[in-house]
Amino acid sequence: MKKFQALLFLVLITFSCTNKKEEVLVSVDDQQHPNLILTTKSVAEIKNQLGSIPLFDETLKVAKQEVDAAIAIGIDVPMPKDMAGGYTHTQHKLNYANMQKAGVLFQLLGDEKYAVYVRDMLLEYAKIFPTFKTHPEQRSYATGKFFWQCLNDSNWLTYTSQAYDCIYSWLPKEQSDYLNENLFKPYADFLSVENPKYFNRVHNHSTWGNVAVGMIGLVMDDEELINRALYGLEKSDVDLTEKDNDGGFIFDKDGKAGFLANVDSPFSPDGFYTEGPYYQRYAMYPFLIFAEALQNKKPDLKIFEYKNGVLIKAVDALLNLTDANGEFFPLNDGQKGMSYYTPSLISAVDIAYYYGSQDARLLSVAKKQGAVQLDATGLKVALALKNGEEKPFIKQSMELSDGSKGDEGGIGILRYNNEDQTMALVYKYAAQGLSHGHYDKLSFSMYENGNEVLQDYGLSRFVNVEQKNGGGYLKENKTYAKHTIAHNTITQNEISHFDFDFETGSKNHPEKYVFDVADKNFQIVSAKEKNAYPGTEMHRTFIMIKEDSLAKPFIVDINKVQSNKKNQYDLPFHYFGQIISTSFTYSVPKTLSTLGDKFGYNHIWKEGSGTANAESIQFTWLDNRRFYTLTAATNKEDELILARVGANDPEFNLRKDPSIIIRKKNTQNTVYASIIESHGIYDPVKEVAENAYSNFKNIKVLSDDANYTALKVQFKNDNEKTIILSNLNTDKNKTHTVTINGNTYSWEGFYYYK
Amino acid sequence: MKKFQALLFLVLITFSCTNKKEEVLVSVDDQQHPNLILTTKSVAEIKNQLGSIPLFDETLKVAKQEVDAAIAIGIDVPMPKDMAGGYTHTQHKLNYANMQKAGVLFQLLGDEKYAVYVRDMLLEYAKIFPTFKTHPEQRSYATGKFFWQCLNDSNWLTYTSQAYDCIYSWLPKEQSDYLNENLFKPYADFLSVENPKYFNRVHNHSTWGNVAVGMIGLVMDDEELINRALYGLEKSDVDLTEKDNDGGFIFDKDGKAGFLANVDSPFSPDGFYTEGPYYQRYAMYPFLIFAEALQNKKPDLKIFEYKNGVLIKAVDALLNLTDANGEFFPLNDGQKGMSYYTPSLISAVDIAYYYGSQDARLLSVAKKQGAVQLDATGLKVALALKNGEEKPFIKQSMELSDGSKGDEGGIGILRYNNEDQTMALVYKYAAQGLSHGHYDKLSFSMYENGNEVLQDYGLSRFVNVEQKNGGGYLKENKTYAKHTIAHNTITQNEISHFDFDFETGSKNHPEKYVFDVADKNFQIVSAKEKNAYPGTEMHRTFIMIKEDSLAKPFIVDINKVQSNKKNQYDLPFHYFGQIISTSFTYSVPKTLSTLGDKFGYNHIWKEGSGTANAESIQFTWLDNRRFYTLTAATNKEDELILARVGANDPEFNLRKDPSIIIRKKNTQNTVYASIIESHGIYDPVKEVAENAYSNFKNIKVLSDDANYTALKVQFKNDNEKTIILSNLNTDKNKTHTVTINGNTYSWEGFYYYK
Repeated sequence: MKKFQALLFLVLITFSCTNKKEEVLVSVDDQQHPNLILTTKSVAEIKNQLGSIPLFDETLKVAKQEVDAAIAIGIDVPMPKDMAGGYTHTQHKLNYANMQKAGVLFQLLGDEKYAVYVRDMLLEYAKIFPTFKTHPEQRSYATGKFFWQCLNDSNWLTYTSQAYDCIYSWLPKEQSDYLNENLFKPYADFLSVENPKYFNRVHNHSTWGNVAVGMIGLVMDDEELINRALYGLEKSDVDLTEKDNDGGFIFDKDGKAGFLANVDSPFSPDGFYTEGPYYQRYAMYPFLIFAEALQNKKPDLKIFEYKNGVLIKAVDALLNLTDANGEFFPLNDGQKGMSYYTPSLISAVDIAYYYGSQDARLLSVAKKQGAVQLDATGLKVALALKNGEEKPFIKQSMELSDGSKGDEGGIGILRYNNEDQTMALVYKYAAQGLSHGHYDKLSFSMYENGNEVLQDYGLSRFVNVEQKNGGGYLKENKTYAKHTIAHNTITQNEISHFDFDFETGSKNHPEKYVFDVADKNFQIVSAKEKNAYPGTEMHRTFIMIKEDSLAKPFIVDINKVQSNKKNQYDLPFHYFGQIISTSFTYSVPKTLSTLGDKFGYNHIWKEGSGTANAESIQFTWLDNRRFYTLTAATNKEDELILARVGANDPEFNLRKDPSIIIRKKNTQNTVYASIIESHGIYDPVKEVAENAYSNFKNIKVLSDDANYTALKVQFKNDNEKTIILSNLNTDKNKTHTVTINGNTYSWEGFYYYK
Repeated sequence: MKKFQALLFLVLITFSCTNKKEEVLVSVDDQQHPNLILTTKSVAEIKNQLGSIPLFDETLKVAKQEVDAAIAIGIDVPMPKDMAGGYTHTQHKLNYANMQKAGVLFQLLGDEKYAVYVRDMLLEYAKIFPTFKTHPEQRSYATGKFFWQCLNDSNWLTYTSQAYDCIYSWLPKEQSDYLNENLFKPYADFLSVENPKYFNRVHNHSTWGNVAVGMIGLVMDDEELINRALYGLEKSDVDLTEKDNDGGFIFDKDGKAGFLANVDSPFSPDGFYTEGPYYQRYAMYPFLIFAEALQNKKPDLKIFEYKNGVLIKAVDALLNLTDANGEFFPLNDGQKGMSYYTPSLISAVDIAYYYGSQDARLLSVAKKQGAVQLDATGLKVALALKNGEEKPFIKQSMELSDGSKGDEGGIGILRYNNEDQTMALVYKYAAQGLSHGHYDKLSFSMYENGNEVLQDYGLSRFVNVEQKNGGGYLKENKTYAKHTIAHNTITQNEISHFDFDFETGSKNHPEKYVFDVADKNFQIVSAKEKNAYPGTEMHRTFIMIKEDSLAKPFIVDINKVQSNKKNQYDLPFHYFGQIISTSFTYSVPKTLSTLGDKFGYNHIWKEGSGTANAESIQFTWLDNRRFYTLTAATNKEDELILARVGANDPEFNLRKDPSIIIRKKNTQNTVYASIIESHGIYDPVKEVAENAYSNFKNIKVLSDDANYTALKVQFKNDNEKTIILSNLNTDKNKTHTVTINGNTYSWEGFYYYK
């Protein structure tokens, strides 16, 4: 019957895919609400199965408990007053979350009290909406209405649109007309035409804005709003140099704007989102929920096929950008601890499963998440899980290109999996990453079993902790966390990459050189950066090598620097835990001073320093009950600095984390060559230190020129291996012959290892 | 048949219980080996049940895998060379562990290869034993043979005695005679008569020595060795002021020595071991395994009834001295992470269950341990678990007295349990604790759900990590960890308690004032210390209060100080994590200097300082995703110091942990009054800060004199409570009437709270 109705009438609406107007067909049945995320059809299907789909039933039960509790407390729509973390902010957040769930409960359980709850709350919002212009806190580049920034208001409208859709057909027409005119239409205008700086960008903020406007447009069948959401506002006179609170550009130079531009531009063809996984996670919800709504209401747009299905790929990319615990790598601005357990990823996983290829690995993630989206996608996931269809999601080594066309560097992840033992090396040779980017070309981080071994500091912020700058970014984010020295990569002359200039950084990106993980025992990733320091080229290669004689793989880190002048180079390794031994002697000062006075150096205490005085040094530390050793080739005069974050930090905003810095002074061309290994375990119950010593004697640079870099790795057991890298040719079939110290090496491909 | 044999012949041997010789009966069957830990009877019983007792079967299977692997590798008895953590040390440890298990496997599985393995290894030991005098490393006050210290050799002999017992009847008599004469008897003599400084003390080391000698004596039926073990060596000319590596006295002034003296003296009647739980855990194995052997072989000694059954009580005490994860409170010298999962506690729990009252709570601990002792005790536990007899071990508030007679202060533990949410406050008013004691009278630590909130630093040592001083104590243990300022208690004039003098500390102890946990919503513990600083009396009281309006209890800490002169008082709170907010302003220095130059102050950086400038301050921090606040009554001129460990630490031996210190200068009598509360949660996935603010406005000292101390606690919701403590009278029936600021309070008992 429904299907019959759906096919009965067809109307033409105007629609465009490439900014050219096209005509597409929409069924009239779509005008029967709900038709946004839930549809009349999916509601019927779900109702048929309720009680027999455990994960769906459980999620619904939790939602019911939450909303019933909220209804018992009563409606509270306070006048906006507080910053993030404060009372009014938190209450308005709660309100949209509860309304969205109440809408679903009304549809699925048929209890009118949920519709009444949504209606009454919306009427409260409609009552106070016109009584003030903006939120009283004027701290954002785009001050919101019920929240201090338009971003949170867009969250509100995105969720609330779903609730509104669920009660739309139940409401008397005069009430929906009233709400449309007095709340929703003006709210959508506020977030777009009244805030072009917020709405008309390529940025996760704008994605939320676009989606908020698009979702309510779909509910109200307001084609003008829908088009505004998809294609942005008309470009008017804008200041292209204007920046937002985070230092990001307000307007795209090419005038790109709107939802589709936000799919086009920041996503690489592999689904990597240039701002980094933390913000990708945040943006996935609006991207996918709006895509689902568009698919329901405007299926001919084929949004899930847009840009070769990038939205589905993005979910896979994001799940791969996590450690063994499902926590996102904190590349660029990222708060540690955020994981795929976040609700936006529950939604993303379900939508990707449903609209993608029903990837059975996604089911195992959904199972861990322990909840599903309460719609057709969640139903399908819950049914598949009930049928035991899931497969494990084993993260493999992979490269994710950056840049809209995939040609602006990327992220290379080398992984090792052995039952529940995992290691991951995350190499960042991506582009700037918009306003949330860090100045850390060719940096890396390393993980073992979900624990950070060598860290990326992440952001300096306590999101939604009101006492800490209202939950917003702390100034140490700009004065420390974004700086090069806060990352495991080279700082030249104590100046951050691109002179810490956002515009310069945004124009450039490293070049991928090689990513090859075909040999599981010799996985290699390599990239070059020529613009961070004009006149200096950095070429860094990581190899994850698994030798049969060793229980775990080790990392070889080859960091070749060539410059047109002599410089000072600092390469830090940001470890955790306690120093166990060093092969070099060092001294510790009686009083602590900072390592420098700017570019993040002003936040670092110099706790100790020494001279290598050898051609190779070792540094062993104990963290998280494991022993790690850095073995590094050195020049005798190289300085080793034992450093710790925390200087000039009057609010104690920074974590007091340590690092060891290898400093080469007055040096033009050089190669940093290091081995990083996890080799032992300390068991405080057995009080046994197993393999507390490194497996290596040393690593040496045998030779280095424009064409080849050759290293020798000496093991404790007197075995040795020679590694030769071709620096200019990555052809897998090319034959190389090199003579080093009288020995001739011949091989095929871009590396030699024997 | 066995039973019949056992009763058939009786012989008389000389034996003594109170240093007077008495005659006791021993059955001849006891001379049929095994008769030490396993007995011919228990072996038969176990064999009957094998395959049907899951936890026992599983433990046996693991032991078999380990020993089979060791047999496959072959016997390795290296000449002693290395310190703890080094190769020869580790190999000899492995050897005794494998021999002990192999002996059990021989008895229970009947496979002769295990007997051969033990025999061949013993013959290797016998071969090299006479070829050298002592271990080459002369770093101990009692250098051992196969190990650098006699202590480890005693471990060897204690375990190996069990293996020897298991193959004794299987060995040809000429071989056991050979081993007795060439290895075991001289080894036992070495550990006792040749090392009286090691053997003849009251100390956990000597306990091991006594037991080693006693165990091998029981195997060889050498009554002279058994008596030496039980009663010590004859007291000869000894230097009573001599000290060991740890600074402990070598000889007991009253001439006490031997196993029974080691039960008598360091255990309080409650089973608390004065050195602290970390060493009690270490000593429990020899105490209990020898007790089991004595019970098997000399049942008339009734060792488990000795001192009112203190050995069984000690197991209960030790299990109660753990956090929610089963990790021991690191009182005195204690390495964090040690827990009741250690093998000595598996043994202890099983023995206590068997020889005690079959406490069903012990079964749940055994279940968590996942292994049992492979003898009659483990069999009984495994059977009871199979029958589902276990009850949860819910740790309750309790007091454990210190001192041989229980009159030397103690440990008061206040606990709160609400499903899986737990809090524990550990208040230490115990005696010095022998050489492993810290100078921390009236200090405390606090736990939430197995996480440290306010820490006891523990020891400064990486046990068995060879790179760190051979795994031994680090000098920072004496220069920092033992000092008063490393603990949450008052340091006067920057000098540690008892002027950091061991002899003075050993003569004194605090006096318990009150321990009353009858009211679960108002649990109180209070003690006084008059000797740490002559002329100054400290009286500290902790109250754990649960108000219905608050989700968790809060702690009120009342620290009353009276002196005959003006002093500087420093009270630190050693928190973890990051500062969220402070009610006071402070400044941070451009360079860091130490807080002082001795008594541990030389290891502390002064990261910031400010003046209270108010009658109450608040300090909120975030740790482990929880918000905590210290609310403290202050004088306006009180100094607040933000401190961090790590200065003058050339080997980076110390953890860089923070503290806040409330400093009162030029003060004679004062009251530190504070509230410590856990009030909120930060969820980095939801990015929600729940209850990020304290529930309190302030705490005030209303009045303070010799008789009464009165406080007012003000809640955020404007409620307030008055607390009045009687400082001199703890009578629960006494009526008090006090007038404070014109208000008259009357009540019965030692406190008022309304």
